[in-house]
Amino acid sequence: MPERDLRFLTELAAQLRVDSVRSSAAAGSGHPTSSLSAADLMAVLFACHLRYDFDRPDEPANDHLIFSKGHASPLLYALFRAAGAIGEEELLSFRKRDSRLEGHPTPRLPWVDVATGSLGQGLPVGVGMAMAGRLEHLPYRVWVLCGDGELAEGSVWEAAEHAGDEGLANLTLIVDVNRLGQRGPTRHGWDTGAYARRFGAFGWRTIEIDGHDPGQIDFALGDARNTRRRPTVILAKTRKGEGVLEVENREGAHGKALRDPETAIGELGGPRHVELRVHPPEVTSAPHRFEDGPLTLPEYEVGTRVATRTAFGEALAALGAARGDVVALDGEVADSTKVEEFAKAFPERFFEMYIAEQQLVAAAVGMQVRGWVPYAATFAAFLTRAHDFIRMAAVSRASIRLVGSHAGVAIGEDGPSQMGLEDLAMMRPVYDSVVLYPCDANQTAALTAEMASVSGVSYLRTTRGDTPVVYRPGERFPVGGSRVLRHSPADRATIVAAGVTVHEALAAADELAERGVPVGVIDLYSVKPVDVAALTAAATTTGTLITVEDHRPEGGLGDAVLDAVSELGPRVVKLAVRGLPGSATPQQQLADARIDRRAIVETVKRLL
Amino acid sequence: MPERDLRFLTELAAQLRVDSVRSSAAAGSGHPTSSLSAADLMAVLFACHLRYDFDRPDEPANDHLIFSKGHASPLLYALFRAAGAIGEEELLSFRKRDSRLEGHPTPRLPWVDVATGSLGQGLPVGVGMAMAGRLEHLPYRVWVLCGDGELAEGSVWEAAEHAGDEGLANLTLIVDVNRLGQRGPTRHGWDTGAYARRFGAFGWRTIEIDGHDPGQIDFALGDARNTRRRPTVILAKTRKGEGVLEVENREGAHGKALRDPETAIGELGGPRHVELRVHPPEVTSAPHRFEDGPLTLPEYEVGTRVATRTAFGEALAALGAARGDVVALDGEVADSTKVEEFAKAFPERFFEMYIAEQQLVAAAVGMQVRGWVPYAATFAAFLTRAHDFIRMAAVSRASIRLVGSHAGVAIGEDGPSQMGLEDLAMMRPVYDSVVLYPCDANQTAALTAEMASVSGVSYLRTTRGDTPVVYRPGERFPVGGSRVLRHSPADRATIVAAGVTVHEALAAADELAERGVPVGVIDLYSVKPVDVAALTAAATTTGTLITVEDHRPEGGLGDAVLDAVSELGPRVVKLAVRGLPGSATPQQQLADARIDRRAIVETVKRLL
Repeated sequence: MPERDLRFLTELAAQLRVDSVRSSAAAGSGHPTSSLSAADLMAVLFACHLRYDFDRPDEPANDHLIFSKGHASPLLYALFRAAGAIGEEELLSFRKRDSRLEGHPTPRLPWVDVATGSLGQGLPVGVGMAMAGRLEHLPYRVWVLCGDGELAEGSVWEAAEHAGDEGLANLTLIVDVNRLGQRGPTRHGWDTGAYARRFGAFGWRTIEIDGHDPGQIDFALGDARNTRRRPTVILAKTRKGEGVLEVENREGAHGKALRDPETAIGELGGPRHVELRVHPPEVTSAPHRFEDGPLTLPEYEVGTRVATRTAFGEALAALGAARGDVVALDGEVADSTKVEEFAKAFPERFFEMYIAEQQLVAAAVGMQVRGWVPYAATFAAFLTRAHDFIRMAAVSRASIRLVGSHAGVAIGEDGPSQMGLEDLAMMRPVYDSVVLYPCDANQTAALTAEMASVSGVSYLRTTRGDTPVVYRPGERFPVGGSRVLRHSPADRATIVAAGVTVHEALAAADELAERGVPVGVIDLYSVKPVDVAALTAAATTTGTLITVEDHRPEGGLGDAVLDAVSELGPRVVKLAVRGLPGSATPQQQLADARIDRRAIVETVKRLL
Repeated sequence: MPERDLRFLTELAAQLRVDSVRSSAAAGSGHPTSSLSAADLMAVLFACHLRYDFDRPDEPANDHLIFSKGHASPLLYALFRAAGAIGEEELLSFRKRDSRLEGHPTPRLPWVDVATGSLGQGLPVGVGMAMAGRLEHLPYRVWVLCGDGELAEGSVWEAAEHAGDEGLANLTLIVDVNRLGQRGPTRHGWDTGAYARRFGAFGWRTIEIDGHDPGQIDFALGDARNTRRRPTVILAKTRKGEGVLEVENREGAHGKALRDPETAIGELGGPRHVELRVHPPEVTSAPHRFEDGPLTLPEYEVGTRVATRTAFGEALAALGAARGDVVALDGEVADSTKVEEFAKAFPERFFEMYIAEQQLVAAAVGMQVRGWVPYAATFAAFLTRAHDFIRMAAVSRASIRLVGSHAGVAIGEDGPSQMGLEDLAMMRPVYDSVVLYPCDANQTAALTAEMASVSGVSYLRTTRGDTPVVYRPGERFPVGGSRVLRHSPADRATIVAAGVTVHEALAAADELAERGVPVGVIDLYSVKPVDVAALTAAATTTGTLITVEDHRPEGGLGDAVLDAVSELGPRVVKLAVRGLPGSATPQQQLADARIDRRAIVETVKRLL
């Protein structure tokens, strides 16, 4: 490396350190020490290897950079300042109310693709971005900066496996091995060989370097760019707090502004105004996209019996023909979720993520960054594995569609480990989420298509067994709506159900009607947002709502109804799965959980 | 291996296969093919290496066996029948209502320690059991049987890392590499070397064998028993459906009873009555336990300000002195959760699980199998990583105590990635769970101690910042209770709060009282079970409840209150975190989320 370049990189790294100290000092909190360790790595990346046009963050050929160690946000913001993307004033607004420079990076900044701060998520999301690049035939690279501590997360190894096996050569992981976690030393300290053996076993090219030597860093980054058929991990030995005596390589210095920032800034040579020109991508190529076509949803005859998971699979395949931007991912259960229908029709746009639900959801998040419309499916029960990724997807303002099959006790014999009984409670609190739970095949097909244009995190819950088709093909089911399936002015109560319990509610209503007790039935297929108007009308006219759900009593349909009518104060009685099920037939399970037609009839009789 | 032994093992394996086919046929469902592949492995384990007294499942020296591939339950039940633990009639009750032989194994059977069926959980739980064995100085071994497909789960690699690094030589993983997952071929098929390289890199002894050769199996299991300082993985190449032409090594044969069980049984040589004598442990040693002592909880002066996380840490250390069976685990944030207080006092009983929350919770589940009383702590937000393990802990009837710190927007500047805003919604639906959310230091100390005698999954939510001490030391706070902090017969409404919002509620009530608007305040520290009587009384007298929570509006405190009074129908108004927060000071965050004193005052004024 020429002496002139070396001097520039050294100056740039010093400025990044100074600015990390300054912004944290102005905030009175933050993670300067975690920023100092990675400053040289990022200086060389930005000056010599990143291809990014800060004026056009949406340029398809731009590289992507994920700060998986999101707490090193002072460094990221210092880089943005050096690149001229933000100014001095904004830099010093770090962590203040209304500032875009949050404690951990979020896409409030146009140059940040996804939110980070929950460790171990950057690499799996980066895998999704790298998959998208390959699908689009784009030359961009995905760079992920992570810490050594977060390599303990299993999600990192789900990603290592997927990237290694797929040979994602457009992905580079840079590990800032600074030896110290939050509480103390990491498991392997500076033993970069321990990490190299692991990544190597997973099929990665591994490079171990001194993370404070610009020459070694430059060589490693260049090597990563030139490596074919394999992803590369750069294991960089660094010192936490590098350059500041007060904190350098010391325990107990994590996540705090420096005690004496002025001395630190002096040690680092004072503030600078190095001008950094990040190279824009050399070519601006149009991303490859798949063709659109007319949408012809499957149609099911009223009165036949079809599983909603089947209708979902067939509708997804139809949607794939209509929209070239739809992709599907599955957790090695596509024959159960019925994503296999899409996989057969559009193998290029189907991604087998194997039994790795964190990577499944993370890949969807990564792909939507590039404008893809991902549907990710597995059993509803196993989506709980990806809870933290779903939560963070909302912070990332990501638009992903999740589909959970095998909901509830209605699966029957397989037993509680396979039953999605907590999924509605998991999905409803997700910021800005949409939660849908159809009861028949035509409704499922319509909602599957509807989801494609829903922004944010949306969720479709499907049922394993066949259920009667009650709606005609082509009917519309808007998000936030509901359907009144039984209603008369004489209704004594209203049963509110969704999914499999709609059919139990209808049977109960018919039986009660025969006995001279008319009750209404509402199909609340949109669990969030919920149809407040319809529920209010029912609560006002009958005064009694009975909610029935194949889900735990906490956090699901019943709670959604209670919330919708809470200021009105009708009597609400919740039927839900309260015990711990074992194995039994689906109908026995519904009966044992007391969410079947008989339980509904008995509840109505008790109440009236 | 002598010819006589070989013949016995072959006969036993054939019987296990026949019984797996028979029970699945009787059920009309189940996973016979996944059972057939592992029959030889388990025949040799049970006949030659397992040390287990079926008459005394609680014998401390017993080995532990976890069927991580829980869908191979027909094989497990066939083993139990061969060992004389269950009879012919029960074997054929498989998957029927009320049978103990559920689709996936649960501890309804006394020889099953933990429920399985969510793949990738057996090894992390086995790590916990192996940790317990070491702590107790017991000679037992932990055997985990898993499939090849589930090695894609990140949780397996969290466990591989922990076991390898700790050198848990008492742990053996047996991988039934049958090449076929549910949907089709696994990622690595029969390439046992791919798995060997990965486990080897994580510090394990690896043995690759033909999983249908009793001699090789016996040698490998013996080798595992004799290996020191390292866990062992046996990578056994097998054929799914081995022994039955209809399904042998075929795709599309997962998770179904055989079409022609009679022919299959004939191929396997027909039913047998091999008597299997499983060797009991050679020595019956008393487990090492730590001493008990008097309980002296920390005391905090009313009016001072102390963070509830600090009180939790100090109380846990006090509890550690009182109860020798208490152990603590943390996800590399013990300085934040304050588990470090316990770690300093009782280093032998503290376990650093690093940033691996699935393994954190799984280790707690494993340790409680042996009677330990585990407390596992991390940030509330990051417990979502372990959601599936928490869900399964309930199916396992496990007693574990989880502690989530840094709850809510009240953490301030760190931003949304670090805020536990969905944790109550995650914990409430867990079967038989207890959810506690204290507002002051003395209450926290009391509840921390109370949790030790709570069975099932319990959860304590703590706050990052200092909050005023409002209760006197020594006061009791039973699970399921609440505290009325402000009350007069003239109350116009009642504010229901918990944790940090209690103090906002008190300030609001005082301000309203000054303005001549008396309102009640309830501290609902027990979010589940909830104090229905107190809420009913408040609802009845004031008719209006205002819930205030530092949590999403779905699934938390507000929903718990709505549920408790749903049949009474008072007006309930929920104040909760509805937007997506950024960075700001704690007090700004509470204000921006509209859960602070001012928002409460305004809400009361709007309503009255």
